Amino acid sequence: MDKTINIAVIGLGGRGRSLLKCVILPLCKEENLCVTALCDIYEDRAASAAKKTEELGFSRPATYTDYKEAIKHPGLDAVIIASAWESHIEIAIAAMKQGLYTAMEVGGAYSLEDCWQLVHTYEETGRHCMLLENCCYGNEELAILNMYRQGLLGDIVHCAGGYMHDLRGEILNGKGDRHYRLRNYINRNCENYPTHELGPIAKLLDINNGNRIVTLNSFASASKSLHETAVRDFGANSPLGQVEFKQGDIVTTVLKCQKGQTIVLTLDTTLHRNYSRGFTVRGTKGAYFEDGRYFCIDDVSDYKFNPDKFWGNADEVIEEFKHDIWKNHTACDDHGGMDWLVISAFIESIKRDVRPPIDTYDAATYMCITALSEQSITLGGATVFVPDFTRSKWYRRNDIAVDTVFNLDKAEPFADLYQY
Amino acid sequence: MDKTINIAVIGLGGRGRSLLKCVILPLCKEENLCVTALCDIYEDRAASAAKKTEELGFSRPATYTDYKEAIKHPGLDAVIIASAWESHIEIAIAAMKQGLYTAMEVGGAYSLEDCWQLVHTYEETGRHCMLLENCCYGNEELAILNMYRQGLLGDIVHCAGGYMHDLRGEILNGKGDRHYRLRNYINRNCENYPTHELGPIAKLLDINNGNRIVTLNSFASASKSLHETAVRDFGANSPLGQVEFKQGDIVTTVLKCQKGQTIVLTLDTTLHRNYSRGFTVRGTKGAYFEDGRYFCIDDVSDYKFNPDKFWGNADEVIEEFKHDIWKNHTACDDHGGMDWLVISAFIESIKRDVRPPIDTYDAATYMCITALSEQSITLGGATVFVPDFTRSKWYRRNDIAVDTVFNLDKAEPFADLYQY
Repeated sequence: MDKTINIAVIGLGGRGRSLLKCVILPLCKEENLCVTALCDIYEDRAASAAKKTEELGFSRPATYTDYKEAIKHPGLDAVIIASAWESHIEIAIAAMKQGLYTAMEVGGAYSLEDCWQLVHTYEETGRHCMLLENCCYGNEELAILNMYRQGLLGDIVHCAGGYMHDLRGEILNGKGDRHYRLRNYINRNCENYPTHELGPIAKLLDINNGNRIVTLNSFASASKSLHETAVRDFGANSPLGQVEFKQGDIVTTVLKCQKGQTIVLTLDTTLHRNYSRGFTVRGTKGAYFEDGRYFCIDDVSDYKFNPDKFWGNADEVIEEFKHDIWKNHTACDDHGGMDWLVISAFIESIKRDVRPPIDTYDAATYMCITALSEQSITLGGATVFVPDFTRSKWYRRNDIAVDTVFNLDKAEPFADLYQY
Repeated sequence: MDKTINIAVIGLGGRGRSLLKCVILPLCKEENLCVTALCDIYEDRAASAAKKTEELGFSRPATYTDYKEAIKHPGLDAVIIASAWESHIEIAIAAMKQGLYTAMEVGGAYSLEDCWQLVHTYEETGRHCMLLENCCYGNEELAILNMYRQGLLGDIVHCAGGYMHDLRGEILNGKGDRHYRLRNYINRNCENYPTHELGPIAKLLDINNGNRIVTLNSFASASKSLHETAVRDFGANSPLGQVEFKQGDIVTTVLKCQKGQTIVLTLDTTLHRNYSRGFTVRGTKGAYFEDGRYFCIDDVSDYKFNPDKFWGNADEVIEEFKHDIWKNHTACDDHGGMDWLVISAFIESIKRDVRPPIDTYDAATYMCITALSEQSITLGGATVFVPDFTRSKWYRRNDIAVDTVFNLDKAEPFADLYQY
């Protein structure tokens, strides 16, 4: 696309505002890009974001409270969805049907059917929905991917990761902040936020690109901490002190892949701890553990035998294997630069009119973990089948991707083996 | 018991020799204890151990190659079993039926039925079989238990642990060493060694003492590393290079407890890494992570906000909460002192003729994890039920235990609530 890309942002809570201010508007100065519409169900949010946009020297975008109107804004080419979790897929499907280049923020699905509808909409309209999984572009995650592609880790047999983030404050202030987490933690019990850890692991394991996830089992601990914290901070007789939270404090989810790898995901958002995505990669030749920042390679005595090189030895390795796209990249957003990279990849896919690097099949695959986790927990940890949303394309893809990072064209040689 | 306790050691491979030399014989100098019989199916092992015993200034014990003879040695009171995993329960049952005080080294069970037979034998004979789970007595594990009993961690909702130990060398040299691991890794795929991490967690969560484990799901990754290592070290055409190993490189097992806690166990013995038992305890007020040696308590700003206190901050806390039994204890065995403590607890239970602190119900409960893990993996991660080997005694125990450590009498007040 040579002409100006006109873009709308739908959802201007904390995340939408951060993306607009720190990434999308700055990108408008570098790319042929213009924010022409802003939409939020709360009128004040859209108005305030429009004002901010104007103050930063851009034309004032039109504002909407109804996304169905916003996606029909004259001349619109693309939309970025950063609304509440519950509305992501609904808005994305409407935008794709409208012919817009569509990207949505992360979050899990509420039913398998929604994931299928997302896929059907892509297949009917030819418009992908990119999942804006910024952690796929994390410096640490890409350094390990880089190391793996260079053969240093051998064959990967196991990965783990988590969303480990004490969010009690944000959850319990949900009413004041008009935030969706509170109602989710009251009403549901599942792996509600799997993609930050699963995205980078899926790229490492070539999910939908020569491999796929086949089964899921999920387990929730008792739910104790939110109640205890609500009673402590607001009193036992306060409305929050009386709430019964369904969400277990720790949710453990185990995935198995067609190529034999296991993946363990941990949702850990209501107990006190440091922040971590717990990124763990176990190959036959080497291992990386984000927790403890430990790295080892078999038979490299330097790493193997120097005890000082155990916990905490990884920083130099992350630096040594820094991915090319991080080398000249200056962090400039609320997540150390990842947001910039993922939004840039979306813009690049629009300009070249090719499938985005985290496409509709990936979105459906990553998001369905939440819906399936709810099923498995409800059924006492039962094994549930993870659908092949690609219906065989995972081993025979041939659509071109924007691929400076994830080796997405890698599936072709594999596919050749099986085509006749 | 006031008279000399005459003891036999059955199984004199690496483990039996280590216990004999570093713990049992030194204890003979402190306690009214005498090693009168030694037994191993390999005659040279028993003979060599008897010679060593004599060299250290003790009477030469009788030697046997058949445990059925050894347990009938005249005047014998007690037996310590340190044979191959496959024979632990068979030998223990024979010893209990012989009226001996019985203790056995750790290892998993091969069928649920064996665990039941162990329990039936105790109930018929009145003789317990103590599981010698030394890690229940680990300095770190007991410091955390101590901290928890003092209320610092709040309610525990989740624990994790692992046997994380690169054993490729030991496994692949199994033939030369006459070691049982090799045949297990060739023929089975399961959580084959759960008790080092599960023991301390079970004590923390009052398993069989007010709580119990109710379900298990288990998952194995692909098996790649042993084959790759065998080919590398012995050649692709060597006997070991041609072996197909059944054991997955990483086995993840999830347990759920009656009181809502989740427990995640990891078997990680065939990939390069540092040694760890990955002991992780998550309470509503605090957390401990062995990996990364990180500790935090909610609302203690000293731990919460000083970034230097994240990874690696736990050493001072472990020291501060050192358990009384470690305070004047000088490490003197092959495992930093834990072996000494667990064997001493066994001797104490004999002298006072009370149930040992890790008793037959505990042994059955911990060991059944292996058999159930094999079931669950075979059934695609299916949820399997963990039997209540106590048949209700977990909430109404009233037999006296040796209890300087684990608060084993704690179940009584709870039981009172439900007795009428």
